[in-house]
Amino acid sequence: MPNIAERREQFAAMFTRPLPADVDSSATTLGGRPALELRTTAPGTAGEDVLLYLHGGGFVVGSARVTAHLTAALLRHLDGRAVSLDYRLAPEHAFPAAPDDCLAAYRELLDSGVDPQRLVVAGDSAGAALAVVTMMRARDAGLPMPAAAVLFSPAVDLTLSGASMRSKDGVDPFFAPADLKWLFDRYLAGGDGAAPEASPVFADLTGLPPLLIQVGSSELLLDDAVRLAGRAGADEVAVTLEVVPRQPHVFQLDDESAEAAAALERAGRFLATRLDGEKEDS
Amino acid sequence: MPNIAERREQFAAMFTRPLPADVDSSATTLGGRPALELRTTAPGTAGEDVLLYLHGGGFVVGSARVTAHLTAALLRHLDGRAVSLDYRLAPEHAFPAAPDDCLAAYRELLDSGVDPQRLVVAGDSAGAALAVVTMMRARDAGLPMPAAAVLFSPAVDLTLSGASMRSKDGVDPFFAPADLKWLFDRYLAGGDGAAPEASPVFADLTGLPPLLIQVGSSELLLDDAVRLAGRAGADEVAVTLEVVPRQPHVFQLDDESAEAAAALERAGRFLATRLDGEKEDS
Repeated sequence: MPNIAERREQFAAMFTRPLPADVDSSATTLGGRPALELRTTAPGTAGEDVLLYLHGGGFVVGSARVTAHLTAALLRHLDGRAVSLDYRLAPEHAFPAAPDDCLAAYRELLDSGVDPQRLVVAGDSAGAALAVVTMMRARDAGLPMPAAAVLFSPAVDLTLSGASMRSKDGVDPFFAPADLKWLFDRYLAGGDGAAPEASPVFADLTGLPPLLIQVGSSELLLDDAVRLAGRAGADEVAVTLEVVPRQPHVFQLDDESAEAAAALERAGRFLATRLDGEKEDS
Repeated sequence: MPNIAERREQFAAMFTRPLPADVDSSATTLGGRPALELRTTAPGTAGEDVLLYLHGGGFVVGSARVTAHLTAALLRHLDGRAVSLDYRLAPEHAFPAAPDDCLAAYRELLDSGVDPQRLVVAGDSAGAALAVVTMMRARDAGLPMPAAAVLFSPAVDLTLSGASMRSKDGVDPFFAPADLKWLFDRYLAGGDGAAPEASPVFADLTGLPPLLIQVGSSELLLDDAVRLAGRAGADEVAVTLEVVPRQPHVFQLDDESAEAAAALERAGRFLATRLDGEKEDS
């Protein structure tokens, strides 16, 4: 088992991509944590929209920079900026450090005057789970909801109880169940994986804004996405689930894949439509 | 309990709507059964696209005419015609009479020269289940798949085992579980409700074309839709699930509802995009 620093380096080396020439990134802080702010120089993008992005990496690896090309792809559909948060990682900082950081970031955006109707949230894998948990906690704290959220391959059941944890074992090109368990154990540090704020597939999602969930059919985490959609729907949340065949975990990361480009395009349009206050894609 | 003829009359009186002025309907036959053919007089609609529509009504009531306004709404996005089948109903004709009729209709369309890449299938409730079963049977018979299918509130678990059968009991404005059981018992006539061709939520859906499933959050049948999406995704089918909050069973039927119009618009665009051979909505 490589050590944590090596894992983070390997993850970054594998997934980090150059940013498009028309995307400017700058270091900032949000909620007391480092963050990466992205803006594009494209026309019509100097407005007040804000995307809060929460990166993946099993709560242990990853960074705002590694998945910044996903953030940038979504940003292209907004009239404003994106902020991707470097929340605290396990094992140095176990649950609920990361959700605490994410809620602090969300709160600071609102406190700084961001209109929640111009605010959207997105994340991949562990970051998608943190997006859901952040909205749940914001709701419980009486804060307004964002306009919408996009969730790529959400890792929302840290107990690994989904049927795809068995049916896609050997199909998933990235993970065996033990790999996920190792990551989640670092994050939980003995805490209860079935707690709603650890595993929002078991949470009450009432009041959350419209959600778009995208997942690959080859994932151990396929059933996390399906059950999150079912839970959200049962709680009267407007939810769209897209299962893309023969795609792996967070397939949107592959910048040479037509399926990735198409999924990011749909996700960006989903956010843009909700920011425009329309009910429909156009 | 009213008799069957009264039930059919009440259902027709409740849901039948006038057809738009630019939609022509004519009686035809397909697969040895009566059917309703719809065409529009709008420009650019004289092409070769074909929509096979399968109406709902719990396998016991309903007709091609009752839901013809749904068929017409989808037709508007096609360049061609729609045919809605009056398959045989229970209790006069139990399972598998209806699936037999639907497969015969599908086969006759192909035999008459319809290009499967220009063919799409849609249905509501029991008809959505028949759409899935027809594609499964066509696949097993070696017939080509249609380009796509749209499923409104599919009734795909005749064993009533979904969690929403309890959680939405009292929320669903149309049904109690006993109502559904009564209908399905007429259809099954003692047969096994868990058989894949009766309840495709238990079926192998491998090889089916892209599916769009729409369901209301207030439905007893919510979990039928969620589990069908999960099953299809696990079987590597491209599937999109939309849960629309606070909507009842086949909410698309309400021709005064903005949610219905929006959902039909999305469904029509989904079919049109697949007929155009594109991967993306535009």
